[in-house]
Amino acid sequence: MAGNSFGQAFRITTFGESHGGALGVVIDGCPPDLPLDLAAVQAALDRRRPGASPLVSARREPDVVEVVSGLFADRTLGGPLTLLVRNADADPRAYALTADQFRPSHADYSVAVKYGHSTWQGGGRASARETVARVAAGAVADQVLAALCPGLEVLAWVARLGGISALVDEQTLSRAQIEASLVRCPDPVASAAMVARIEEVRARGDTVGGVIHFRAQGVPAGLGEPVFDKLEAELAKALLSLPAAKGFESGSGFAGAELTGSAHNDPFVPDGAGGARTSSNRSGGVQGGISNGMPVTGAVAFKPVATIFSPQQTINTAGEPVELRARGRHDPCVLPRAVPMVEAMVLLVLCDQLLRLRAQTGRVGPAPLRPPAAWSPR
Amino acid sequence: MAGNSFGQAFRITTFGESHGGALGVVIDGCPPDLPLDLAAVQAALDRRRPGASPLVSARREPDVVEVVSGLFADRTLGGPLTLLVRNADADPRAYALTADQFRPSHADYSVAVKYGHSTWQGGGRASARETVARVAAGAVADQVLAALCPGLEVLAWVARLGGISALVDEQTLSRAQIEASLVRCPDPVASAAMVARIEEVRARGDTVGGVIHFRAQGVPAGLGEPVFDKLEAELAKALLSLPAAKGFESGSGFAGAELTGSAHNDPFVPDGAGGARTSSNRSGGVQGGISNGMPVTGAVAFKPVATIFSPQQTINTAGEPVELRARGRHDPCVLPRAVPMVEAMVLLVLCDQLLRLRAQTGRVGPAPLRPPAAWSPR
Amino acid sequence: MAGNSFGQAFRITTFGESHGGALGVVIDGCPPDLPLDLAAVQAALDRRRPGASPLVSARREPDVVEVVSGLFADRTLGGPLTLLVRNADADPRAYALTADQFRPSHADYSVAVKYGHSTWQGGGRASARETVARVAAGAVADQVLAALCPGLEVLAWVARLGGISALVDEQTLSRAQIEASLVRCPDPVASAAMVARIEEVRARGDTVGGVIHFRAQGVPAGLGEPVFDKLEAELAKALLSLPAAKGFESGSGFAGAELTGSAHNDPFVPDGAGGARTSSNRSGGVQGGISNGMPVTGAVAFKPVATIFSPQQTINTAGEPVELRARGRHDPCVLPRAVPMVEAMVLLVLCDQLLRLRAQTGRVGPAPLRPPAAWSPR
Amino acid sequence: MAGNSFGQAFRITTFGESHGGALGVVIDGCPPDLPLDLAAVQAALDRRRPGASPLVSARREPDVVEVVSGLFADRTLGGPLTLLVRNADADPRAYALTADQFRPSHADYSVAVKYGHSTWQGGGRASARETVARVAAGAVADQVLAALCPGLEVLAWVARLGGISALVDEQTLSRAQIEASLVRCPDPVASAAMVARIEEVRARGDTVGGVIHFRAQGVPAGLGEPVFDKLEAELAKALLSLPAAKGFESGSGFAGAELTGSAHNDPFVPDGAGGARTSSNRSGGVQGGISNGMPVTGAVAFKPVATIFSPQQTINTAGEPVELRARGRHDPCVLPRAVPMVEAMVLLVLCDQLLRLRAQTGRVGPAPLRPPAAWSPR
Repeated sequence: MAGNSFGQAFRITTFGESHGGALGVVIDGCPPDLPLDLAAVQAALDRRRPGASPLVSARREPDVVEVVSGLFADRTLGGPLTLLVRNADADPRAYALTADQFRPSHADYSVAVKYGHSTWQGGGRASARETVARVAAGAVADQVLAALCPGLEVLAWVARLGGISALVDEQTLSRAQIEASLVRCPDPVASAAMVARIEEVRARGDTVGGVIHFRAQGVPAGLGEPVFDKLEAELAKALLSLPAAKGFESGSGFAGAELTGSAHNDPFVPDGAGGARTSSNRSGGVQGGISNGMPVTGAVAFKPVATIFSPQQTINTAGEPVELRARGRHDPCVLPRAVPMVEAMVLLVLCDQLLRLRAQTGRVGPAPLRPPAAWSPR
Repeated sequence: MAGNSFGQAFRITTFGESHGGALGVVIDGCPPDLPLDLAAVQAALDRRRPGASPLVSARREPDVVEVVSGLFADRTLGGPLTLLVRNADADPRAYALTADQFRPSHADYSVAVKYGHSTWQGGGRASARETVARVAAGAVADQVLAALCPGLEVLAWVARLGGISALVDEQTLSRAQIEASLVRCPDPVASAAMVARIEEVRARGDTVGGVIHFRAQGVPAGLGEPVFDKLEAELAKALLSLPAAKGFESGSGFAGAELTGSAHNDPFVPDGAGGARTSSNRSGGVQGGISNGMPVTGAVAFKPVATIFSPQQTINTAGEPVELRARGRHDPCVLPRAVPMVEAMVLLVLCDQLLRLRAQTGRVGPAPLRPPAAWSPR
Repeated sequence: MAGNSFGQAFRITTFGESHGGALGVVIDGCPPDLPLDLAAVQAALDRRRPGASPLVSARREPDVVEVVSGLFADRTLGGPLTLLVRNADADPRAYALTADQFRPSHADYSVAVKYGHSTWQGGGRASARETVARVAAGAVADQVLAALCPGLEVLAWVARLGGISALVDEQTLSRAQIEASLVRCPDPVASAAMVARIEEVRARGDTVGGVIHFRAQGVPAGLGEPVFDKLEAELAKALLSLPAAKGFESGSGFAGAELTGSAHNDPFVPDGAGGARTSSNRSGGVQGGISNGMPVTGAVAFKPVATIFSPQQTINTAGEPVELRARGRHDPCVLPRAVPMVEAMVLLVLCDQLLRLRAQTGRVGPAPLRPPAAWSPR
Repeated sequence: MAGNSFGQAFRITTFGESHGGALGVVIDGCPPDLPLDLAAVQAALDRRRPGASPLVSARREPDVVEVVSGLFADRTLGGPLTLLVRNADADPRAYALTADQFRPSHADYSVAVKYGHSTWQGGGRASARETVARVAAGAVADQVLAALCPGLEVLAWVARLGGISALVDEQTLSRAQIEASLVRCPDPVASAAMVARIEEVRARGDTVGGVIHFRAQGVPAGLGEPVFDKLEAELAKALLSLPAAKGFESGSGFAGAELTGSAHNDPFVPDGAGGARTSSNRSGGVQGGISNGMPVTGAVAFKPVATIFSPQQTINTAGEPVELRARGRHDPCVLPRAVPMVEAMVLLVLCDQLLRLRAQTGRVGPAPLRPPAAWSPR
């Protein structure tokens, strides 16, 4: 009800505040007896860590993962798997000076009137720091998927930032190419321009937004439910739940709305293995809300970071107009660090849907094709 | 788990297939003792009904709502409110001829490999006909919201269709203006061009997509949860669960990703009633996932209808390539009829979140502002 | 939230009032492509039908099941399976005369103050008539279980009624023996005495309660979750949710609380198939909340029917003391008709837990035994 | 799905193993801005702590509660409230010697075949140590209830142990009377006999069970849902989810099944405040699944502790018969320490139902009585 859980069969519950003692996640429903590679979980956390490049927040957090429950002799028990990350560099005092002022386009005001208090601690639950718990859980989901669907891989990258677009060949794209860029943009020319753009806006205390693309390869056909829990709907929710996300596209997205049906439809062709593939993929791997075996693709728009260092008009807790001068340590652009967050949310959706498919059908992949049922009206 | 329910406190479960006996919805958690205006529910259904204009499907469905449970002496009992709409013009035989062929960009193939059967009945659960149940439930949500938040109104309209954009003054927009247009576009010039575009593509057996905008006015601050169930995330899921939806934007959406923080932030100003409003609304009424009292705004992209009447390449249930020639009665453009669907989903999200706010806080609106908590580190 | 759904992976939502138009159930998560034997569903309904013997309510309800959705060519589609049973002999006028009086030990008063209205229609949702929907759903669960766990069988019977106890050999018990008795007590001597007891209390306008036992044979080991959703906890909830149920026992129950551990423990012995069975079954087939492969056994206590035909003291809706003289058609004893209700709830719990086991582990039965994990403290 | 959460509006998720690093609970949906009395939470934990009397397990656990999230300046934030209790005296090595043997009537075997591993660490999630998390959460629920329903109090006590029954006047019973007894039995004579019985069975390495009664006073009318989530059904589930619980009664329970309706019904009388009370309370404060304002009463049966110190027949992980000689630190009787567990589960159910009532109706208590609705058939 209060929305700190996500997923049904593979269900995570996150907890912790940006400037409290720790962030954490309880994963419920994880398959038992899975050898858990903790180093891989830590590697995922390292990818979203602040302080890792000159372009991101100066907050120094080692983000070391600690297993609190659910593991024995390095294998999952099948009970709740709890991962904890201590806050090492929390500093609520930085916020104390402006504790009575609502930062524009932050959660301060809406949180205050929802809960009837003012916590002024750098966002609390609404902070991007909460996503450390999601990234840890996503790394577990990745390992569950690897065990059940060998070859499945989810990649995300910065496709647009501050007005600069990347040109990317998705067919040959690798994580190494993405990680080679300071801003996680696999197009070296665009990457360099994006870095320059971030430095430029940061120099004047401003911030910038952009778009992340994702692509999940090796997703078995049959994931997603045909009505409310369409795979696209689950992805949309998952990705819009990320801080600063304001838009989502599945497959052709808004551009697809410009086409005619004859230009947009994806023809089916035999896949050589008794099933079908499509010769184009404007559907983004999802048809009728259910994966069709093609790569699942999409995009997420992130608004510019709300914390800027020029004076802004706002009101205080007495309802009076005041001028805010921001403090604290903030990223000038959330996108590079949002890449592992996007991947984590896509992994969590796929893992949950895979276990849900298994509950209903006993399969973790498509059924063979069959001739249509004979039918006569009653 | 199988995804036929939506919402938590105001929870709907829909059932029925496009060419089965009936569509229906069970609403659980509806406040008791609410006088239910069934005529208003019927009016909402009439707005999404096929056969209502020359531009939409020729299927003739009166879509008369029948109350199966939950009402006594015209007031809600507090138990499950069940609404049923009989299929009057179902005709699965139209699909029998192509029963062994997978229609491109439809759900046929992904449904077949998910469930291990071929139902060939015009989409089954994936059909847009399922939304009749959502629209009925949305009309009930509308009445609950009217009782608890007088003045709250949700409007949706066609903002773009087949390459044509509407110019709309959202401040003065009314439902009457929207309904005056055959395509539910309140800009008369754009509306006429859109009608012409639909007729043009239909004449050659083709289809067209577009974008619907929505705006919810009078939404109290405090709706939405700060982490996974952000108001935007819930809206994104709700709207991407509509058939043919491929994109979602909250507030500034993808365009906002092009701006700097200083250009994007919404300054707070006193609202004259002890709280705040923002002097711009690029946040779309949602900050940190929680409504801030400003209008909640967004957009949904719909791909062109997949059923086209030119021959298409596909495979059959034996895995062989075949040429498909479509039959059946289909809309050349889903958007005019999708307008009430969008409104229904927004209403369902708001109603659910309102009851969730009430569970946790006892309020159906914002708390008064308070000075920040005194705090000293332990 | 409002409690009209039960189960997670195999989830049912019931709707309808005792004196409304219909009762029904939506089953979500049912495995697809299952041949559904509707005659078996109807047979289950016939077993709980009123008007079937001189000992039960005179209300004449044919209770014919109607499939509204989820079935095509007699096989399940995988979408919501909706079953409807029309009320044919509803008669709310029988209640109109005492509409302003709260019947003692009925739901009238608590429903009135919960929902803020007085519906006076024979119990509404609280009526035992609601269970028609559960019995229909239970019959579907039975078929799912038969497909996945051949040999699984759930039997319930009247073990005690009006002070008379049955002597039953559970090992050889069959449904035929149970159904041969007018009161569903497989001990012919006790059955005759129970019939006489019911006739005696009915003659003086009184009612009587009793205890039903159940036994599920062929339940695979591994069902149930170790903490909140223990198999016993799920059964307890399921069975206490039946009207008039006031007590539940798993295995040895209250009698087990009188024993010492050495007398109560069930020794493990090899089962001849690589696993274990227990040489006694005081655990009732459940240890640590999880089935161990032995028969799952338990008991449910039902209070006497609240509607008696002697005058009773109560208050009216004005808060004034009044004398109530009951009308309406009522069973003098709920137990014979509760037998199929108990079976249905046990079947629903087992089916849900089986699909949940499959989600997490991919299995519908126990894993083979393995040596303990080597372990060294970190 | 994997059953580590309980409740809907006030929802807890517990984690941790008996011999892992810590036990903990995430509480989601807790009302915001509630001053949290941590000393009261600690006091509740102290009541269930092992090592506190000569009659219970020698395991030495300080059970100090640590707040990980959800609190700022000693008030609840409205986000997940996470409480952690470190294991200080875990000793898995005690179990290593018998790691390949299944302890009779423990969870070892059913856990092993459910999850496909053998964890041999003293029960893992199935251990009674898991309840430390529930007791902590129950103490928070108690404070929420105190804020919303002043005067509500839940008491539990040992009513029967090893064949000895207490005589208790529930009307005048206080917690002080209960806590004055080493075994939490408020009847001094019975208490002394129970202590002697425990010492006697412990001396010969055996164990003993019994029955706990509970009584919740000041519960507002209107809690509980009329169908599946009846207050009694929720309590039954909550209490059967406690380790070693094998039976549950609401109100008159199994004894009520022996009575006639005329002897069992509770007459309504005016309560002097515009509503009703009943002159007897065989209903246990619940009618039609909904509280009626009278004390909510019931009983829970606990089997004798499974760990006994005489040799027992069992099998090992190779499926071979072996003789088990138990080790480890165990209570000879779980009942004294189960008293705070029972109270915690009752508090959690009541708190969840109260917030659910508030979601649907806006009230935290009963509506005033109203005349019945005028009604004419359509």
